[in-house]
Amino acid sequence: MPLAKEEYLPNISYDSVIFGFSGEKLKILILEYHNMKTFALPGGFVKIDEPLDTAVKRGLSERTGLDELYLEQFRTFGSMERFSSEVMRKILEEQGHVVEDHWLLGRFITVAYYALINYEIVVPTPDKLSDSIKWYDFDQLPSLMMDHNEIVEKALDHLRMNLDQKLLSFNLLPERFTMKELKQVYDTILGETQNRANFQRKMLGLNILERHEKLFTGGSHKAPFLYSFKKAE
Amino acid sequence: MPLAKEEYLPNISYDSVIFGFSGEKLKILILEYHNMKTFALPGGFVKIDEPLDTAVKRGLSERTGLDELYLEQFRTFGSMERFSSEVMRKILEEQGHVVEDHWLLGRFITVAYYALINYEIVVPTPDKLSDSIKWYDFDQLPSLMMDHNEIVEKALDHLRMNLDQKLLSFNLLPERFTMKELKQVYDTILGETQNRANFQRKMLGLNILERHEKLFTGGSHKAPFLYSFKKAE
Repeated sequence: MPLAKEEYLPNISYDSVIFGFSGEKLKILILEYHNMKTFALPGGFVKIDEPLDTAVKRGLSERTGLDELYLEQFRTFGSMERFSSEVMRKILEEQGHVVEDHWLLGRFITVAYYALINYEIVVPTPDKLSDSIKWYDFDQLPSLMMDHNEIVEKALDHLRMNLDQKLLSFNLLPERFTMKELKQVYDTILGETQNRANFQRKMLGLNILERHEKLFTGGSHKAPFLYSFKKAE
Repeated sequence: MPLAKEEYLPNISYDSVIFGFSGEKLKILILEYHNMKTFALPGGFVKIDEPLDTAVKRGLSERTGLDELYLEQFRTFGSMERFSSEVMRKILEEQGHVVEDHWLLGRFITVAYYALINYEIVVPTPDKLSDSIKWYDFDQLPSLMMDHNEIVEKALDHLRMNLDQKLLSFNLLPERFTMKELKQVYDTILGETQNRANFQRKMLGLNILERHEKLFTGGSHKAPFLYSFKKAE
């Protein structure tokens, strides 16, 4: 097991909420330890000489098989309620480790990140510690270990609140898209169907879109305009 | 010195950017270690059985004399560049401590917070570790230790980006205020004078203000309306 005590900072971890989107559903990537029926967010630890950002990218790649994610750090969780060494003790015992005084049984303050990806174009793979990794519908999440359900909720708050500024970074849409495609992203993530005219007025008012030629699909009288995100100045 | 090794989590600290505002200037609260000519943000450490949020409130109260601050956590900094034990070694030596293997010489990942207060109604007081605490104009900050200047910049980015949502929490304005007073807050914090008509249109469009009776000061034909923030639903 590549988690020797002297290699890692004690008491600090990270967790990541990977939102998946396919046009109609918002999903979240969850790891499972089968024998224990324990569900968790993908997370990990920071090596003693490793920058935090590097650790998160490395760990997430190891635990999910996903590379090149745009991750947004959103909050660090440090309550005492998140200190429950029993779950980690069982996971370690299950894998045949000597657990007395194991550094993983200590208290961890965790730095939380989120990402938003199109789940149809990636295939996550589980790491050695966990037995499976799967997409769960946001509204049908299992009960997660420790405070991971709370972390998911806070991640969604941040995603919704900053969608206008972050959407470009998440690279969810084709380079040119219609207002209808853009609205579909918002409706799915906000969890509500917005009024079409109001949505268009709001988006154009934000001054983040560039309008291009119409999308002619032949015959239609209502060929929609295509838009792209304005390049950052 | 109340910083015994067994009392605190190693490798984790917090730092706070306290913005002060008085209508015309944006300032920042800075600690100084006189003999060393070292300037730093007020920060501190987390006790092993203390929730992160509690630690931050306790520490900030001890180090600045300020209580009841509304603090917003905005980012956790964990690069290797911020690991420079020399400054801390000198501070400890200066105060007569045995520094070999001192836990404060280790690498620290720091959770950063910001607050925004009216600096005319508070009197900060320095703690035992530092020699003075003072307000510095934002555009005349001294060079701060480690990555503290970068932390200040990132805090300002967050403050500016989220001003519409956070202004109410920061409690800067009287309960009822004029559009002119509100614009003064924005102009100071954003560092630019905005067009009056555009500003008013934008603020009213945000749907966060409630309009009340006009402020009659006697004789004026241009008595301005008073506004308050809408109560959260």
